[in-house]
Amino acid sequence: MMKDLFWDDKPHEECGIFGVFAPGRDVGRITFFGLYALQHRGQESAGIATCDGRVSHMHKDMGLVAQVFNEQNLAPLVGTHAIGHTRYSTTGSSHVRNCAPYLIETMYGALGVAHNGNLTNTLQLRRKLLERGVGLSSTTDSEVVTQMLAAPASIWREDEQGDDYETLSNANGAGKGSPDRHRWEARLRTFMQVAEGAYSLTVLTRDAIYGVRDALGLRPLCIGELENGGWVLASETCALHTVGATFVREVQPGEIVRLDKDGLHSIKGHARMPRALCSFEYVYFARPDSVMEGQVIHEVRQRLGRELAKESPVEADVVIAVPDSATPHAIGYSLQSGISFSEGLIKNRYIGRTFIQPDEDLRKAGVKLKYNPLTTNLKGRRVILIDDSIVRGTTSGPIVQLLRDAGATAVHVRVASPAVRHPCFMGVNMATYNELIAHPEVKKKPLNAR
Amino acid sequence: MMKDLFWDDKPHEECGIFGVFAPGRDVGRITFFGLYALQHRGQESAGIATCDGRVSHMHKDMGLVAQVFNEQNLAPLVGTHAIGHTRYSTTGSSHVRNCAPYLIETMYGALGVAHNGNLTNTLQLRRKLLERGVGLSSTTDSEVVTQMLAAPASIWREDEQGDDYETLSNANGAGKGSPDRHRWEARLRTFMQVAEGAYSLTVLTRDAIYGVRDALGLRPLCIGELENGGWVLASETCALHTVGATFVREVQPGEIVRLDKDGLHSIKGHARMPRALCSFEYVYFARPDSVMEGQVIHEVRQRLGRELAKESPVEADVVIAVPDSATPHAIGYSLQSGISFSEGLIKNRYIGRTFIQPDEDLRKAGVKLKYNPLTTNLKGRRVILIDDSIVRGTTSGPIVQLLRDAGATAVHVRVASPAVRHPCFMGVNMATYNELIAHPEVKKKPLNAR
Amino acid sequence: MMKDLFWDDKPHEECGIFGVFAPGRDVGRITFFGLYALQHRGQESAGIATCDGRVSHMHKDMGLVAQVFNEQNLAPLVGTHAIGHTRYSTTGSSHVRNCAPYLIETMYGALGVAHNGNLTNTLQLRRKLLERGVGLSSTTDSEVVTQMLAAPASIWREDEQGDDYETLSNANGAGKGSPDRHRWEARLRTFMQVAEGAYSLTVLTRDAIYGVRDALGLRPLCIGELENGGWVLASETCALHTVGATFVREVQPGEIVRLDKDGLHSIKGHARMPRALCSFEYVYFARPDSVMEGQVIHEVRQRLGRELAKESPVEADVVIAVPDSATPHAIGYSLQSGISFSEGLIKNRYIGRTFIQPDEDLRKAGVKLKYNPLTTNLKGRRVILIDDSIVRGTTSGPIVQLLRDAGATAVHVRVASPAVRHPCFMGVNMATYNELIAHPEVKKKPLNAR
Amino acid sequence: MMKDLFWDDKPHEECGIFGVFAPGRDVGRITFFGLYALQHRGQESAGIATCDGRVSHMHKDMGLVAQVFNEQNLAPLVGTHAIGHTRYSTTGSSHVRNCAPYLIETMYGALGVAHNGNLTNTLQLRRKLLERGVGLSSTTDSEVVTQMLAAPASIWREDEQGDDYETLSNANGAGKGSPDRHRWEARLRTFMQVAEGAYSLTVLTRDAIYGVRDALGLRPLCIGELENGGWVLASETCALHTVGATFVREVQPGEIVRLDKDGLHSIKGHARMPRALCSFEYVYFARPDSVMEGQVIHEVRQRLGRELAKESPVEADVVIAVPDSATPHAIGYSLQSGISFSEGLIKNRYIGRTFIQPDEDLRKAGVKLKYNPLTTNLKGRRVILIDDSIVRGTTSGPIVQLLRDAGATAVHVRVASPAVRHPCFMGVNMATYNELIAHPEVKKKPLNAR
Repeated sequence: MMKDLFWDDKPHEECGIFGVFAPGRDVGRITFFGLYALQHRGQESAGIATCDGRVSHMHKDMGLVAQVFNEQNLAPLVGTHAIGHTRYSTTGSSHVRNCAPYLIETMYGALGVAHNGNLTNTLQLRRKLLERGVGLSSTTDSEVVTQMLAAPASIWREDEQGDDYETLSNANGAGKGSPDRHRWEARLRTFMQVAEGAYSLTVLTRDAIYGVRDALGLRPLCIGELENGGWVLASETCALHTVGATFVREVQPGEIVRLDKDGLHSIKGHARMPRALCSFEYVYFARPDSVMEGQVIHEVRQRLGRELAKESPVEADVVIAVPDSATPHAIGYSLQSGISFSEGLIKNRYIGRTFIQPDEDLRKAGVKLKYNPLTTNLKGRRVILIDDSIVRGTTSGPIVQLLRDAGATAVHVRVASPAVRHPCFMGVNMATYNELIAHPEVKKKPLNAR
Repeated sequence: MMKDLFWDDKPHEECGIFGVFAPGRDVGRITFFGLYALQHRGQESAGIATCDGRVSHMHKDMGLVAQVFNEQNLAPLVGTHAIGHTRYSTTGSSHVRNCAPYLIETMYGALGVAHNGNLTNTLQLRRKLLERGVGLSSTTDSEVVTQMLAAPASIWREDEQGDDYETLSNANGAGKGSPDRHRWEARLRTFMQVAEGAYSLTVLTRDAIYGVRDALGLRPLCIGELENGGWVLASETCALHTVGATFVREVQPGEIVRLDKDGLHSIKGHARMPRALCSFEYVYFARPDSVMEGQVIHEVRQRLGRELAKESPVEADVVIAVPDSATPHAIGYSLQSGISFSEGLIKNRYIGRTFIQPDEDLRKAGVKLKYNPLTTNLKGRRVILIDDSIVRGTTSGPIVQLLRDAGATAVHVRVASPAVRHPCFMGVNMATYNELIAHPEVKKKPLNAR
Repeated sequence: MMKDLFWDDKPHEECGIFGVFAPGRDVGRITFFGLYALQHRGQESAGIATCDGRVSHMHKDMGLVAQVFNEQNLAPLVGTHAIGHTRYSTTGSSHVRNCAPYLIETMYGALGVAHNGNLTNTLQLRRKLLERGVGLSSTTDSEVVTQMLAAPASIWREDEQGDDYETLSNANGAGKGSPDRHRWEARLRTFMQVAEGAYSLTVLTRDAIYGVRDALGLRPLCIGELENGGWVLASETCALHTVGATFVREVQPGEIVRLDKDGLHSIKGHARMPRALCSFEYVYFARPDSVMEGQVIHEVRQRLGRELAKESPVEADVVIAVPDSATPHAIGYSLQSGISFSEGLIKNRYIGRTFIQPDEDLRKAGVKLKYNPLTTNLKGRRVILIDDSIVRGTTSGPIVQLLRDAGATAVHVRVASPAVRHPCFMGVNMATYNELIAHPEVKKKPLNAR
Repeated sequence: MMKDLFWDDKPHEECGIFGVFAPGRDVGRITFFGLYALQHRGQESAGIATCDGRVSHMHKDMGLVAQVFNEQNLAPLVGTHAIGHTRYSTTGSSHVRNCAPYLIETMYGALGVAHNGNLTNTLQLRRKLLERGVGLSSTTDSEVVTQMLAAPASIWREDEQGDDYETLSNANGAGKGSPDRHRWEARLRTFMQVAEGAYSLTVLTRDAIYGVRDALGLRPLCIGELENGGWVLASETCALHTVGATFVREVQPGEIVRLDKDGLHSIKGHARMPRALCSFEYVYFARPDSVMEGQVIHEVRQRLGRELAKESPVEADVVIAVPDSATPHAIGYSLQSGISFSEGLIKNRYIGRTFIQPDEDLRKAGVKLKYNPLTTNLKGRRVILIDDSIVRGTTSGPIVQLLRDAGATAVHVRVASPAVRHPCFMGVNMATYNELIAHPEVKKKPLNAR
């Protein structure tokens, strides 16, 4: 719907996912507030699907969570469990038919999927679906996952072994619990054997929600417990806090968790593989108050700043951050170095999201449209500028110039993350190889040639 | 989106479908005007899908054709061929995800379907799809038809014979023409063996559009030719006229027609069965200027009126119609009987479509909200009131009372269609058995008991 | 918002106005249904203002009555009395700030005005307001009228006489009844001395509604009484019928009526002048079931048709009308001449209102996009084509050609209204002098030169 | 449109105003970006009015600047000069008719007004307008100001002196420059004599824009110069930077500045009075990068923090801020005290603006919905919590509790602004007397009684 007016040399967040199982509670509303807390992970579209054991409901549309939902369209989203999704398009273009979650009717009731990440073998999986004669109405990974799960697991298994769960199951199995449960678990396990890439999923069936995390653990997913009963799944712990849930633990890489009336169940989905969580979650994506692998993100960022001060010290008068994401790193650098932290750049919070294009004169202003220097903190001072990461390197130069124009006598740039030498195919919207300033081929060009 | 405020004792129209193959023309725009001319067949939602041989586009939404489309969303609907749909919900509730046409990606390119009619074995077909592991995202027949056509014909054939066309075909066959063509024709023929009920379809593939009509010929579909080249399919001939096309012929019951760059091709889809076109098309649904089976609808209705005058003559001063649909019947009655035709009731054209509910006092007004009597044509006169059909009989009494209150000394009601004793399951939204005033069980109750 | 795609050689309706005084009833809702019945008088914007004696409320926007209002925005429109307006722009462009009614706060409480007609001395009146230092925020006559009424009558009177009512009045007079009443009546009478042109008004003050009609009686306005108490004002009687009110009488030319808790009061506003009601109301604008000056419009149109048959008889096989407005005239011609009436042209009800422009090929189709001939009623027949009026004469030729192409052996055009030789400045949106086909200067050009 | 879900114990920003005179530039677009930079001063509605010397244009609506404007509605906003407004309702309810700026036609061309502040004698001024017979269509101060300026200055002057400028002027004076100029300046000066309270205005006439600031200088207004010619007026200097303008100076209290084709002109509007700028601008409202009276707001806030550390020192381990507004104060406190600054609370940026109400369980969460504690920075530490201001004191207690629950061993609250003992009537939306925690009467109640 809206796109960034001024490219900001940051990788882009992709998606926030949420799920809740809480009979007796307003699960649509809880999901709304959960998505609200995850808004920083995707501002393009939002959606919620609910189920009461028999009937399922959904509303999704382009826009921010608070724009997509109002009391009128939230009211029909009733049920005992729900999933939600807030999206930044990584695959699939910006079109209403690419909004998530995906919700379909299957042989065994409703099936909904919210997906964070990117599959790397989507084309093969799409082709297999199309070959089976399943038509696809969108270009999203989410629809592929959903239609894969709609089919018997045996279709996707190459080992030709019988799928016990599937053969034992029957269409009327719901309520008795086990056949439905075994069926979906078999399908999810099979999906995890076949799918490659990054996927954290929340899945809605007629009597449960599932949380699924790929074996590398590339995208985060955590479990929370509501005060008066009920379970929550969320991309980040900050959403647990917002809906009044207590953090239980993270979904483990390769694990499937099922949340239903009998509580929390853990199923082994895929053998664990070497740990590979996206470093951008720690450095830039996640909200600083979220906890990942036992560590508060803010604390990690402060430590990164401290480490940076040790690795790359420099004499200066003030430490400032590229706001807002590099502030914790800068505080860490300040604490370690003993050089005072202060604010040196003010960011226009609103400028990033508008359709209106600047005219030529305004365009020349460039980063000035986004950042204003705080002259009083810069004039006559030697400045250490902390950034969390550099991707293409397009904004660093102009920002340094802005600080110099404001009177800084020296500007020392320090970057908290290592050099980004290769693009990401796991759900981060990033530059291509030859745009990466730290890519070996690119580095050979002199910086002043840009 | 909007619903009828005052039930009008008429069966409801269901859908208008359209298709055009005209490289070099603005096929999206032509489809827009085609749907415009078919607006009387469905006012709930509208949609257009186009294809240029490789890429397909679609826009659909709730609302009238003129509300759904504007220059901005019509602009991307480019291509060499297109299909369109205007809908009155017969199956599937009033929800944006039930809008038609349905457009998916298949192994062999885009596939779009616009459907007029109701399948009677939908539940079995849905179940077969679900059993195969195909998830369904709406409750419409159109999605069922589309997903059926997305799968190899062999899946649906019970005779276990090989499907020659399918086996010969390959995914890169488009452009060479024949494999794609044979494949879709095989699938359409198979669909026609399996599907029961009423279906007139326009189908879009990557290089052609198809017109399909069930073997009973329950719903209309006709073919037109554009002046400077190109072909058109439409539910009624009135739409041909509007887009500047000449009527060629009707699609025959059980026939498949393919319209592509080589022209018009006829394929036998299903052995013809006894003729069974919906009588309501002649009596009420179709626009009076449309031609069906060689007869102008207006002329048929006039003849029905003449026949009525012969069957059921009565001495009177004036012949009037329940506007607007019974006017041709009334003119016929007048011509035959020699009793002058005039207007006796004025209909508020706009009152039918609003969300606003009348308060109690206004509700008492009943049919008065919808019809105003023309006292000068009624006072002191013996009136023959012609209606095209009576379903539940709920409005006839109040209308007669209205005429009497306006001074008519006698009111003779004559109805142009036979007694409606049974509900319809072929795509007409009608009362259930025990609501039908002409159903044998209902008739036993005295009229004044209502 | 929407404009006519195909010019139809008709003058354009302008506005429908409504008013209701009915404590205890839902006056906003009644006004909604009143405007609904007057929708044919203006489809561009709609608005309702209400007052409960102290507080006033308003909602207005671009669009049809049913599009502008929903239960949500109708709910706050509470009160004891209300006025409403449905607009076709005659003065002031199509912009939301030109929507009516106009509602302001004055020294003596709320003042709302809904206006049908065109003032001919608007520029002078605007100038006088501007000279007094009153800024105007729209280009409508309605705002001019409202701001004129907001000022003491003395300002507008040239005879320099004291304005007794004004001097006697005081700001706290409401409730006691008379000072407020005398004040508004003095201002309305003064307005009627000063304003020139056509104006039927419904005016809302804090404790009453007024109906005002110019001394020539150019635009219609009638009074109705609700069954359980309460009064209604409406442009046409058809709206009385719709809201369950009984016709009382018309507001007389030059009369002011006040409707309040004490009933109906008549005030002489302006000396009656020679009668001059707009002939287009009778011939084309008004709904056929409305009554004007004691005559049902349909009956008048039938009589015009009869008269036409006497004045200009011709031998033929069938009488047809340009639908829908000329149907009553054609029925009259048929009754008088004894030549059967039938339908010969079917009009696409929906085609008139869309933003979508036809492409070049479609444009060539011209009137075909709007009218379809009923060949069976025309082929081999001598046809009398009745039109209600001809303004520029641009469509008559093509329609005759359409009938000939459909097989008519002769087409005799008969027009129910006299030659339109001069444009109208009283609120009818019509052609300029040199476009009028009946203007003496225009007539000299040969018809085939067009 | 949207309202704050969780009351935040802050006074509310009110309005941002902007103006630009720059023939040859896209003045509508410049105003858009200017309002964008002032978005923090009002998020309820936005509007822009432009003029090209003859014709004026306007668009305004409810919503954020980026929601109200798109390329389509921005395109017609052409001209040589423009004014803009972004609003938080202080007077007048949240209704589209209260959107600003106000634009009217006057005797001397277009007149537009954008207003920041609150008049304290509005009721008297409204009454004077109403007595003169000027109807008012909104409840805003802006309309009052606009209609006051539409009238000859003499009307408002009590000294009965002739108004030379007015008598010399004539309606055709524009272009010659002086009569128009003298007229508006006379009216603005007269307005400044009569109006009481806070008003910073940008005013648009047919050939110039004016900036006006009340004699106390209660609301800010500054002047900038565009690089290639042209002048800008803005509430804060941050907007100058965003549109590429250089800061010239502030408009002085009591000064009128006129910006036209001949440049910048200063006119004495009112004798200067004792200086009285709103302290909340310094403490909370203004963007930290804005400059007021030669001081960068951020620097002022840091100094306030330093002063606080001197006045009220305490032994502790970490200094944190109530985000985001108290961060500069906290940095100052840290710099002075030598106690490290860090982040202790993370604010959900998005939670403030939604229609969706939390259910009962979520409501109990209270401030938790808005703030998450950063446990790692709090656990086992003695914390100094800096807030910029306390109004009702309703959130301080819960925040302290939140910090204690997160493990802080001591929480020392320090507030940068003095006790707020009295409400404000100058355009700040604040609590009433008996809600103010620092009001003498309120203080007597024990805190635990709340």
